[in-house]
Amino acid sequence: MNASTKQSFPLFDEAHSAEAVNARIGPNVDPRTREIASAVVRHLHAAVKEIEPTHEEWLAAINFLTNTGHMCSDWRQEFILLSDVLGVSMLVDAINHRRPTQATENTILGPFFVDGLSISDNGTNICRDGKGEPLVVHSRVVDIKGAPISGATIDVWQTNDDGFYDVQQQGIQPEGNLRGKFTSDADGRFWFRSVKPRFYPIPDDGPVGKMLGKLGRHPNRAAHIHFIIEAPGFETVITHIFAPDCPYLQEDTVFGVKESLIGRFEHVEDADAAEKLGFTSPFWSVEQDFVLKPLA
Amino acid sequence: MNASTKQSFPLFDEAHSAEAVNARIGPNVDPRTREIASAVVRHLHAAVKEIEPTHEEWLAAINFLTNTGHMCSDWRQEFILLSDVLGVSMLVDAINHRRPTQATENTILGPFFVDGLSISDNGTNICRDGKGEPLVVHSRVVDIKGAPISGATIDVWQTNDDGFYDVQQQGIQPEGNLRGKFTSDADGRFWFRSVKPRFYPIPDDGPVGKMLGKLGRHPNRAAHIHFIIEAPGFETVITHIFAPDCPYLQEDTVFGVKESLIGRFEHVEDADAAEKLGFTSPFWSVEQDFVLKPLA
Repeated sequence: MNASTKQSFPLFDEAHSAEAVNARIGPNVDPRTREIASAVVRHLHAAVKEIEPTHEEWLAAINFLTNTGHMCSDWRQEFILLSDVLGVSMLVDAINHRRPTQATENTILGPFFVDGLSISDNGTNICRDGKGEPLVVHSRVVDIKGAPISGATIDVWQTNDDGFYDVQQQGIQPEGNLRGKFTSDADGRFWFRSVKPRFYPIPDDGPVGKMLGKLGRHPNRAAHIHFIIEAPGFETVITHIFAPDCPYLQEDTVFGVKESLIGRFEHVEDADAAEKLGFTSPFWSVEQDFVLKPLA
Repeated sequence: MNASTKQSFPLFDEAHSAEAVNARIGPNVDPRTREIASAVVRHLHAAVKEIEPTHEEWLAAINFLTNTGHMCSDWRQEFILLSDVLGVSMLVDAINHRRPTQATENTILGPFFVDGLSISDNGTNICRDGKGEPLVVHSRVVDIKGAPISGATIDVWQTNDDGFYDVQQQGIQPEGNLRGKFTSDADGRFWFRSVKPRFYPIPDDGPVGKMLGKLGRHPNRAAHIHFIIEAPGFETVITHIFAPDCPYLQEDTVFGVKESLIGRFEHVEDADAAEKLGFTSPFWSVEQDFVLKPLA
């Protein structure tokens, strides 16, 4: 390019800082990349202008991001934790899964899903370490009009009564403890036995845990059971059922709780019913239907 | 805390996502931390709501931040590069160094400053590798009323004619090549000999360089000489003089160029003047005063 054809860019100044940066995006950049980059720059500069960080505060932010990056490994994703505790993961999920009111809402997937389980019979007890209060879950998978969806596959997973997933305690918990995969029957029904879920902390020994401490926040997730419900022709639902009496129900550290996902857990004192389930009395029972939205 | 005294938090929803996150900041958090955290969350959520990232785009952002963190080491700070190329470093500098119009403006410090040099005599040639077009720099350090400031210390550093700082090429360039420290005389004057600076790329073999590529941007800094001017009772100035004929003057990749910092470089064809300086003709000459703001 010679002087006459070369583009002239505005010099940087405080008042027009974001415009000066975004003017540099090249002419052949794909539109979505341009849209994302220019929005990031605008909001980032707006944040800096509102906060007016000192040099030391800016450097603290640089060091926080660096430490968060250094904490990431093949088995630990500290930036996803950061996204989770800042509500960004839930916001991205909400944006991508706007559904009719009657459809089951999504919530966060989390890092502990294990794909590829074989199908278990309905009624299977997925608790293999014998810890915790027994729970039976009865569900129905239906469409928005209430018609049953048979042959849906349902992945289920949760922590054990010590607050850990099996994959966090390999060699300690029985393999596949508190995981199962089921299919819905002709009436859309599936059921399984398990234990009442309990709250647990997200990994808080890294920069994100330190940040939570500085913000006066605890690291606990509200007690829940994970579900993925898949059926041909329907939008996959990734969700939880929450225990209604969990002390962290209103302050899940990753903001995963939605009113519609709080289960109606019943405390059953009925020795006959318990015996039929292979439980001792009392035990817990929850019924929760999953309503799937048809694919567009 | 029992149920009656425990605070009730709003559950997360898309419309009030930032408010739900910020409601969790604890009551005893120091006010500045609260101010920064809540502004970050508000602007971050506003960006996500504008961009509406897909799950894949969100994951790409997570991976970009992770890779940027993994690129950081004791000798490479990729997050500072990111801050630089997004104009954030210059914005933070501008916010912290608002000065009267007549005072010399700051610009970016950069990662290649070396502290603790001993003072050189005025007139010293800081170019020790003999490469490049000879340049003489004459300067005066003055206060806002134009009165000379004697005894100011001036740190100077720049790349060699290959576009590298000495610390980037240890064992290749002579030690201390193109660095010097001077003091202003009774008239506020200092001068030194060097070579005309040339443009150079920031390190672009990491995630930030890849990002620049995707944005259709080059990695080049406009040609410049670094200065730090310190004098008791005055605000320290960290700045550059830019070469006016650099092809990247209007598109410095870190946005460091300010109109007032573009030097008036004169091309001198005068054999006598050259001989007096120990130069061959032609050579370059620049005169630039530095105007310091008194400390409040």
